[in-house]
Amino acid sequence: CDLTGWWENDLGSKMHVLEVDSEGNFSGEYHTAVSSTDKPIQPSPLVGSQHLDKDGQCTFGFTVNWKKFSDSTAVFVGQCFSGDNGNEVLQTSWLLREKVDSLPSDWKATR
Amino acid sequence: CDLTGWWENDLGSKMHVLEVDSEGNFSGEYHTAVSSTDKPIQPSPLVGSQHLDKDGQCTFGFTVNWKKFSDSTAVFVGQCFSGDNGNEVLQTSWLLREKVDSLPSDWKATR
Amino acid sequence: CDLTGWWENDLGSKMHVLEVDSEGNFSGEYHTAVSSTDKPIQPSPLVGSQHLDKDGQCTFGFTVNWKKFSDSTAVFVGQCFSGDNGNEVLQTSWLLREKVDSLPSDWKATR
Amino acid sequence: CDLTGWWENDLGSKMHVLEVDSEGNFSGEYHTAVSSTDKPIQPSPLVGSQHLDKDGQCTFGFTVNWKKFSDSTAVFVGQCFSGDNGNEVLQTSWLLREKVDSLPSDWKATR
Repeated sequence: CDLTGWWENDLGSKMHVLEVDSEGNFSGEYHTAVSSTDKPIQPSPLVGSQHLDKDGQCTFGFTVNWKKFSDSTAVFVGQCFSGDNGNEVLQTSWLLREKVDSLPSDWKATR
Repeated sequence: CDLTGWWENDLGSKMHVLEVDSEGNFSGEYHTAVSSTDKPIQPSPLVGSQHLDKDGQCTFGFTVNWKKFSDSTAVFVGQCFSGDNGNEVLQTSWLLREKVDSLPSDWKATR
Repeated sequence: CDLTGWWENDLGSKMHVLEVDSEGNFSGEYHTAVSSTDKPIQPSPLVGSQHLDKDGQCTFGFTVNWKKFSDSTAVFVGQCFSGDNGNEVLQTSWLLREKVDSLPSDWKATR
Repeated sequence: CDLTGWWENDLGSKMHVLEVDSEGNFSGEYHTAVSSTDKPIQPSPLVGSQHLDKDGQCTFGFTVNWKKFSDSTAVFVGQCFSGDNGNEVLQTSWLLREKVDSLPSDWKATR
């Protein structure tokens, strides 16, 4: 698969991957539909990497830096699949790291 | 904090971040000490992003593409802290996406 | 909410909760639709606990012991919601612990 | 392994398992050292299940209902190991489900 282009998930968040280079690296923007802060949501830069397997079922991962409205960072990891209708489908899981004040609060920082 | 340099975790895996640019983006290599494949482990490229907060407790995330010996992808997310002895400490969590054959196997693909 | 009864998830796995006692504890059976072993799937005992909040949106958790066909253990945690059509909906997350041989393999034991 | 007795983790949380029955089911109390609420921490009831493998490396899981001071629920899953000094060591992972108001907030409910 080639992640270049726009992708949307069930919650309405959208990912725009600008270009995938010959190493599988890519950058783009993530437009989240949900947020745990009160500040206005803004598109946030993402950087990541994908495998370039020929079977169209490659795994990938990327990091979103919410720098414009939050001091958190999110990572996503997933795989491409062919859906019933021939369209490509992305299955992803994510972790959100929230900034905490000190090491003793570390246990609760990851959603 | 500035992630540039070498970092090692409890399991003996090492991360080498080459340089962090003015946007917080970085690349480098990850030398894992553990693997779920039988192929020889090799250093693997990583790309990621960090916040540039002045307090030295920024959050960050990165993607490791195990392309040389596995079709899996891992993502890490974490935060810098100052340890007891003044050294910087990284607290991280990770997800490993293993490639599966089909959507019905998707449930078990993420460790 | 009261978890007593039958519940089914998107993958076709079914949960049968026999009775919730006055402390919120319950037991039952889990009929999984998916498995990471080759042995025939069998109904497996579950034990868990739920809150008894009056608003019908209580959180809950339970443990499934796959003792009849696997040496793994799974835990589920979630919350009840009222769906669009008035039906109760369960949102759950899970962790599966697979048995590993030794401590150095511990990192990969949890899906 | 037999989980009956007291166990303590790195953060200072303590688990007391009263008795493991012939099916592997057990109950007890969890004395957490950390909390995401402001209310005073109190011992909280736990119910769970363990495998009864003869090799002392069984997997287990349990649910903690924080009913006395929180509407959250936590689940833990893990495995026993023999440590360097012959003592039994527990390796565990956990998920904490916090109560949220509505389905659209579901994405952020699990730590």
